[in-house]
Amino acid sequence: MSAAVDPAVRRARAWLSRTVEPGSIAVWRFVERVGPVAAAEAVRAGAAPAEVQALAGARAGEDSSAEDLSRADRCGARLVVPEDAEWPTVPLHCLDLAAAGVGAVAGRKPDRTVALVPPLALWVRGSRALGDLVDRSVALVGSRASTAYGEHVAAELAHGLGERGWTTVSGGAFGIDAAAHRGALAAGAPTVVVLACGVDRAYPSAHSTLFARVLDDGLLVSEWPPGCAALRHRFLVRNRLIAALSRGTVVVEAAARSGAQATANRARDLGKEVMAVPGPVTSAMSVGCHELLRNTERGAVLVTSAAEVVEQVGRLGEDLAGPAERPATPRDSLSDVARRVLDACPVRAGAPPERLAAVAGCEVVDVLRVLPALELADLVEWTGTGWRVTRGAR
Amino acid sequence: MSAAVDPAVRRARAWLSRTVEPGSIAVWRFVERVGPVAAAEAVRAGAAPAEVQALAGARAGEDSSAEDLSRADRCGARLVVPEDAEWPTVPLHCLDLAAAGVGAVAGRKPDRTVALVPPLALWVRGSRALGDLVDRSVALVGSRASTAYGEHVAAELAHGLGERGWTTVSGGAFGIDAAAHRGALAAGAPTVVVLACGVDRAYPSAHSTLFARVLDDGLLVSEWPPGCAALRHRFLVRNRLIAALSRGTVVVEAAARSGAQATANRARDLGKEVMAVPGPVTSAMSVGCHELLRNTERGAVLVTSAAEVVEQVGRLGEDLAGPAERPATPRDSLSDVARRVLDACPVRAGAPPERLAAVAGCEVVDVLRVLPALELADLVEWTGTGWRVTRGAR
Repeated sequence: MSAAVDPAVRRARAWLSRTVEPGSIAVWRFVERVGPVAAAEAVRAGAAPAEVQALAGARAGEDSSAEDLSRADRCGARLVVPEDAEWPTVPLHCLDLAAAGVGAVAGRKPDRTVALVPPLALWVRGSRALGDLVDRSVALVGSRASTAYGEHVAAELAHGLGERGWTTVSGGAFGIDAAAHRGALAAGAPTVVVLACGVDRAYPSAHSTLFARVLDDGLLVSEWPPGCAALRHRFLVRNRLIAALSRGTVVVEAAARSGAQATANRARDLGKEVMAVPGPVTSAMSVGCHELLRNTERGAVLVTSAAEVVEQVGRLGEDLAGPAERPATPRDSLSDVARRVLDACPVRAGAPPERLAAVAGCEVVDVLRVLPALELADLVEWTGTGWRVTRGAR
Repeated sequence: MSAAVDPAVRRARAWLSRTVEPGSIAVWRFVERVGPVAAAEAVRAGAAPAEVQALAGARAGEDSSAEDLSRADRCGARLVVPEDAEWPTVPLHCLDLAAAGVGAVAGRKPDRTVALVPPLALWVRGSRALGDLVDRSVALVGSRASTAYGEHVAAELAHGLGERGWTTVSGGAFGIDAAAHRGALAAGAPTVVVLACGVDRAYPSAHSTLFARVLDDGLLVSEWPPGCAALRHRFLVRNRLIAALSRGTVVVEAAARSGAQATANRARDLGKEVMAVPGPVTSAMSVGCHELLRNTERGAVLVTSAAEVVEQVGRLGEDLAGPAERPATPRDSLSDVARRVLDACPVRAGAPPERLAAVAGCEVVDVLRVLPALELADLVEWTGTGWRVTRGAR
């Protein structure tokens, strides 16, 4: 499918992806207006709008795009561009809308690290088509300093999502991210790691084995070309992509005012579902989740299982979670009088109906009326001298 | 203040409290219409409306009201009637409204055990005035089969409420109830136990010491006269009173479809605040709380601390909980360019501005512009040959 795309377009987008730090609205608008090839030529010639030229800075004079593309090819990666069939057009449409509206929204920070702007291109490693994989996907995010509880829940959710045919998207970091990817793998389901460095790099390096397993049936995705390091500000830029690619974001564990909360807020800004997993109120790692759940204006939905997550992000009438169940007891269906008579029945020696009426506070005829039903339900029994509660009903 | 009440009224209400099981709308309406003395006379004579007469049943011929009142007196209790100054008129007004509206609400069960009807009188044991004590009160309810987590949180909440001048109301049962009463006592704060048996009885009997401590500065309250046993259906009737007496109900731990949830739903029906404490999604004892929090139509508010409970039930502008805090770092206030330059600075050997510009993807003039601010914030330092990150900023 990539064959249909003009190599010059792919080359231009590859060059732009290294020359201009991703996340800039000005650059995205310029590329949208003049096209990727003309945009790249203008920046290279120093003829782009001042704002765009400033972002390229000293990099405008360098060109390692051919090297980047062949380096990607050597590690089994490719550059997916909006002109490709596998581009996740529908999921990322929310970013188009957000970027189009940015100038209009008063008070929104122009900061590139929080701007909701579409990617110019995505470096993708793995054999699956990106668009297919993220069509039914959920982002599981959370703290790196997670607890055993949070990791357990993240793995369970991802496993359950995988069993239901949903892809888990996360950031490949320590803690909740890794637990989520592992849970998906345990279910034999694909998972997508959205990186803040080149897809040829394992960051953190301790996750090289995990990422190798992800590649069996999933994808590593990044806006940065091969070789790029995971600089701190890039995580902030990357986070919007996790929120945008998936149908909804679940915060599994997060400290107060944490990055996971920020990702959740961006998901909401993009019109995606935002969910949070509750935890012990005594755990600092659940404070961020509880903050999200307490915020009534920008409220997150409380989720406790994969079924509930799917109910939230799934299509109406297709994916509905059943309510938690408790077995009904015969007592549940009793009338008020029957319940009072049952309570009035002694445990050992039987009592006559007159006595039951006095204790239950009703007429003797009422007692005589409800006793047969209670006996049929095996709740009371006749001792020969009176009525008492059966062993099973105690 | 009780001196002003006609002894015949108190005697009539005492008699009614034993003769008719509490919770009947028909009886309450009859007493409201003709007054307690005439109502008692009519029931005794078999001349009350059929529905009322049926509820009195065989008990209409008995009279132990004088004995009940003296029995109460012997254990330091009294019968508080609506005509008393200490009657909690404002808290219980919600039940007046609910009872007045019952006929009008379609589909509402006429079952006495779930009817929202005011008490005819309250047997109160303890020296404090009932109305004063419940004016600023919160109900903490939950499972008897609680976990250590739930008991810890219940005790912490009650303790925090006590410190803030709030009374904890609960049912005196094992588990969450007992932990809540104990937490209040630990804070030296009054607590109210609403019983489903006579106030001279300790139910469960293992709580006789706890109830004795409650009586130092708190109250035991019941609709049933001294000597009455805690029959099972009475707990259901009692639960509406816990919800009605307090400003709001907090469910601390509850299994799926549990009694605590039912109490919470009644609190909501009465226009009171309903709150729930989250817990591990792996705990069966938090399932009921999470169900309440997930129910968006009849949603409960998630609370994690006494401050948040008080914020919910307190008066506007008087009791507000502060947000969870994370210390701000110098990095938080950096501009996009400054953050990129900071990230571009090496950890060991210093790099010149030109190199920083290439890595950060900006103009050299931008680097020179932001470096002084980064140095002032103690984030970068000059090595003699270039700029690097300070030890503190790593």
